[in-house]
Amino acid sequence: MRTAIAALMLIAGLAGAQDLMPLPASMTAGHGALAIDTGFQITLTGYQEPRLRAAAARVVARIARQTGLPLARAFEPDSSAAETATLVLDTRGPGAEVQTPAADESYTLEITPQQARIRAAEPTGILRGLETFLQLIRPGEKGFEVPAIRIEDRPRFAWRGLLIDSSRHFMPIAVIRRNLDGMAAVKLNVLHWHLSDDQGFRVESKLFPLLQRMGSDGRFYTQDQIREIVRYARERGIRVVPEFDIPGHSAAMLTAYPDLAAGPGPFQIVRTWGVHDPTLDPTREEVYDFLDRFIGEMAGLFPDPYFHIGGDEVNGKQWNANPAIQEFKRAHNMTTNADLQLYFTRRVEELVRKHGKKMIGWDEILSEGMPKDVVVQSWRGAKSLVEAARQGNPVILSSGYYIDLVQPASQHYAVDPLNGPAAELTPEEQARILGGEACMWAEYVNAETVDSRIWPRTAAIAERLWSPRTVTDTGSMYRRMEAVSRELDWLGLEHRRGYVPMLERIAGSAPLDAVRTLADVVEPVKGYARNRARKYTSLTPLNRMVDAARPESDTAREFANLVDRGLGGDKAAMERVREQLAVWRGNDARLAPAYGGSFLLAEVAPVSQDISALGAAGLEALDYIAARKHAPRQWLERQEALIGRVKQPRAELLIMIAAPIEKLLNAAK
Amino acid sequence: MRTAIAALMLIAGLAGAQDLMPLPASMTAGHGALAIDTGFQITLTGYQEPRLRAAAARVVARIARQTGLPLARAFEPDSSAAETATLVLDTRGPGAEVQTPAADESYTLEITPQQARIRAAEPTGILRGLETFLQLIRPGEKGFEVPAIRIEDRPRFAWRGLLIDSSRHFMPIAVIRRNLDGMAAVKLNVLHWHLSDDQGFRVESKLFPLLQRMGSDGRFYTQDQIREIVRYARERGIRVVPEFDIPGHSAAMLTAYPDLAAGPGPFQIVRTWGVHDPTLDPTREEVYDFLDRFIGEMAGLFPDPYFHIGGDEVNGKQWNANPAIQEFKRAHNMTTNADLQLYFTRRVEELVRKHGKKMIGWDEILSEGMPKDVVVQSWRGAKSLVEAARQGNPVILSSGYYIDLVQPASQHYAVDPLNGPAAELTPEEQARILGGEACMWAEYVNAETVDSRIWPRTAAIAERLWSPRTVTDTGSMYRRMEAVSRELDWLGLEHRRGYVPMLERIAGSAPLDAVRTLADVVEPVKGYARNRARKYTSLTPLNRMVDAARPESDTAREFANLVDRGLGGDKAAMERVREQLAVWRGNDARLAPAYGGSFLLAEVAPVSQDISALGAAGLEALDYIAARKHAPRQWLERQEALIGRVKQPRAELLIMIAAPIEKLLNAAK
Repeated sequence: MRTAIAALMLIAGLAGAQDLMPLPASMTAGHGALAIDTGFQITLTGYQEPRLRAAAARVVARIARQTGLPLARAFEPDSSAAETATLVLDTRGPGAEVQTPAADESYTLEITPQQARIRAAEPTGILRGLETFLQLIRPGEKGFEVPAIRIEDRPRFAWRGLLIDSSRHFMPIAVIRRNLDGMAAVKLNVLHWHLSDDQGFRVESKLFPLLQRMGSDGRFYTQDQIREIVRYARERGIRVVPEFDIPGHSAAMLTAYPDLAAGPGPFQIVRTWGVHDPTLDPTREEVYDFLDRFIGEMAGLFPDPYFHIGGDEVNGKQWNANPAIQEFKRAHNMTTNADLQLYFTRRVEELVRKHGKKMIGWDEILSEGMPKDVVVQSWRGAKSLVEAARQGNPVILSSGYYIDLVQPASQHYAVDPLNGPAAELTPEEQARILGGEACMWAEYVNAETVDSRIWPRTAAIAERLWSPRTVTDTGSMYRRMEAVSRELDWLGLEHRRGYVPMLERIAGSAPLDAVRTLADVVEPVKGYARNRARKYTSLTPLNRMVDAARPESDTAREFANLVDRGLGGDKAAMERVREQLAVWRGNDARLAPAYGGSFLLAEVAPVSQDISALGAAGLEALDYIAARKHAPRQWLERQEALIGRVKQPRAELLIMIAAPIEKLLNAAK
Repeated sequence: MRTAIAALMLIAGLAGAQDLMPLPASMTAGHGALAIDTGFQITLTGYQEPRLRAAAARVVARIARQTGLPLARAFEPDSSAAETATLVLDTRGPGAEVQTPAADESYTLEITPQQARIRAAEPTGILRGLETFLQLIRPGEKGFEVPAIRIEDRPRFAWRGLLIDSSRHFMPIAVIRRNLDGMAAVKLNVLHWHLSDDQGFRVESKLFPLLQRMGSDGRFYTQDQIREIVRYARERGIRVVPEFDIPGHSAAMLTAYPDLAAGPGPFQIVRTWGVHDPTLDPTREEVYDFLDRFIGEMAGLFPDPYFHIGGDEVNGKQWNANPAIQEFKRAHNMTTNADLQLYFTRRVEELVRKHGKKMIGWDEILSEGMPKDVVVQSWRGAKSLVEAARQGNPVILSSGYYIDLVQPASQHYAVDPLNGPAAELTPEEQARILGGEACMWAEYVNAETVDSRIWPRTAAIAERLWSPRTVTDTGSMYRRMEAVSRELDWLGLEHRRGYVPMLERIAGSAPLDAVRTLADVVEPVKGYARNRARKYTSLTPLNRMVDAARPESDTAREFANLVDRGLGGDKAAMERVREQLAVWRGNDARLAPAYGGSFLLAEVAPVSQDISALGAAGLEALDYIAARKHAPRQWLERQEALIGRVKQPRAELLIMIAAPIEKLLNAAK
């Protein structure tokens, strides 16, 4: 706690550390800066391995890219260069052959005007330190530089993950690869890869090739690709935990092997969202024979010590409708389907264990008799988190980190695994809370849009899981998240660069800046609202404004700040409020001529009209405020009707400037 | 000519054809439109080959990308689908095994509300027609569509090229690949690949491996990569003509094999720009033995019937200083170094011919006795173009198409190979003018910036070389070039997406929109001015504002139009002029606090101050105009001094709004 406060106090004075995210455990400012120029050189000392050499080469390429300096030959593996190199990587020894949550990710980064040095017990710590170093590079007075600083850093939680759902929309290898780069940049260390669900089975099986042949529409990862991703992740200090969801969420699997189902087949790949009926039959030995061989094959493909079996959202319909299963329950004194699923989960756990892995499952698997090394993933609320920890099971938190629900980063940032009921746990119980995972479920994202739903908001979750508990300042988080967002862009993430092309696709003949003015102040509907709004399938195009719009409107957030400052008496701020309102007031007139020409633009015409109406209302309110007159009642009623209307989503979009404009209207009362 | 005028008249009425570039030879509008939706299907009929199947699959992927429609399985190779498919590719027969300038690139594209069909004599024509089809896709009232239309199209010139210089800055394979995509999109058909120069030899030679080992800094293309690029280009109907520049521009080659030089070695890879001394010795038989084997090896690697030997800019210093060469000249009755070079060129031409190729060279090789199938590339002016054609040699034009000189697209667009002195040629002589090539010399571009120097301006040159001679409307060209620019972005070209990241790198702590406001109104200095401005080497970072700034400021061009309309009495235009001037006036105040924090931003402080001064001057001028008062003389003198100052480049940048603001000042006189 002391170090965290020190870090927060220091950050204001540390020009170069402004952009660090996640914030390190502790920092001490030095004097001066180390120049980063075409003479930049990086070298290794102490323990060496190919992974470190690859990391060094990658860092050189990234510095070249970030700065535009030609650095083709800046990596010098020979440690005799350690005295003259710009950056020295000093590693004590190797890490585990296969990375585990016990990996030592701590590092020390010391920068003087003469040299930078990262020290770590094992390569994973070096990797973390390199990301910090890269975030410190900035243009200085005379050239690029990193500030003199001493950083001692280590993660708060050992399990810091991102779930990517490749089942509902297939994510090509390039998507996975660039998101691993993004994860490494913010020091996440687990890719939870959701590889099988009702909508698709995505891994090549040699033992059961019908899985990918019938269950994937031809869109799956070959075993070579899987191995390549595992290698790519390991080079970045990231574990890959595969998930194959059973006994529910298994329609794609059962499309290939209908005999494993509790209900009569044949089955088809599901094209819609929600909870579906096809479920494995937990009462038949053939099912366990299949799972034994299948898990064995996949356990060989994925080296991670953990293996995720899903276990969520079994609706039980097929079980209830099957007399043999009912008979089985009676014979075994099971009263509920939960009992039956517990039986299934125990059997599966034995198979997972047999193949050398520890099992993970969603919180539905939680039960008293579960072996104490089974990890529970809490998604339905913090209650299961606390229960699992009390019961002796390791647990990770995803409730509050569902980034598919399109909530603001600040909301996820406020979710601390050790807050709420978890604060009541004993230290021993708290120690079972291994960390958390952001979850990118893929109902409403595809390869084009997924980056924009993951980034930059996931950086806020990454900071929550890495940085000291006391790092909670939302303003600082948003400022630093913007810097991380730029960095991710250099890394190849497409969260920002896809925006304008998507708007151009929508625009038709409309002027792009006017389309963007609209897009900048709207957000997609939140939570599960989109699921209710219209009938989506996996073949529905995701090319509308709701898909292009950012999860979080920076423009609206900044405008709300301006309004607060303006109403507080800041005249310059009020002037900028006025200018902004004028742009919105005039915007619909610029779009209107183009509505006939583009169905994608026409859809947002009512939204555009209301944005302009809000702009006009705000300007009128400013006039009343400036004239120190009370706005007439009729006018107020009209504006309240407008505010009421715009709070309802249209085209699955929310207008995010409604609240601050409502403040202006109230001030004019 | 008739068809061309028909095309121009039609285009106003053809909503969907607005975006075509290059404009087709003739178009006839139909009624209605063909829907492009998730049912889209493409099929082949008539002659089939793998290249056509690859093209069809590529088109499906591009439509999916442009529209956001999921089209994973829209390519149906089976021609039995020809009745129901959305798009039918109807090919009469195969093209040549190796594409030549005689390839038939013509096609017919017929679109009805029921179906689209491209007919062509050979695959190359189909490829051209597919690009036209893609440019027709637009969002309509109900969904994406292509307008009903009938297009008959063929190129005006057979040789439509882009030179990429991979020597001065190495261009990774990804750069070449995406630029081939861009070339295909605007129907260019020759990649002229400048592979060897003083600054680097860029191809693996198995016979003479020192060429790449000593002449490339390790940055060269392997033979496998070359074959892959040749294949990639052929799939897009593009020929690859390699250039190995001799006897001058050969320092990298002579670094590896100094014995071939006319002067004493050893030599080094040159790191600066300009004309350098190292030159092959044309008097020694060992040189021709080397060239025989070298050309033989490269002729096998590059299947194109043409082989470019450079031949430009021999300064003759090593020849003059070498007594044996002087003796050789005397013995052979040669009075000038041009005579000696002619001897060399003839000898090389025999070798090129021996290895089954036709020779090309820069216009220095032009001489009366040159065999009539040697192609001359005219770069120093149209004079050599006319001379070559008169003399009986085929000739291609690059003078006027040097895109490295950062001139506006309109300037290149106005250069017609058959205008000027060429207009005086007989039809037979004119027929020898095969076409032209845009030249992307790489002194001041690297992999990061090269796309922004090639695109979109090269689309204007591509239209000049493809479309009817009468297609010359600059306003229409700029409108359509903007649409092509979007398309190229979808294709993966980085000419637009690199802009903001480069500005962010420069910005330091400055607000990005203010940095962009500045960048949007400046252009790099033109012609060879940059070469004079400071000492550049191949290791100089290209990360300054002059590298980020676009070759052509759209903002400035649009502002100049606004000013003209405003001064002509358009009040709305004048209001927008005022708003724009106010933004500029206030911009430097937003940047100034950040100058101390970024050396890259500080460099443009004087430019920024003058942009704000111009904004202020323009606003004052508007006040005088509005008040119908003559501006006082002192004020005018001050503004004239400002205008005089801003016409001088600073930081190698030109402020492009100076001229329209001068108009406002004059109007206030």
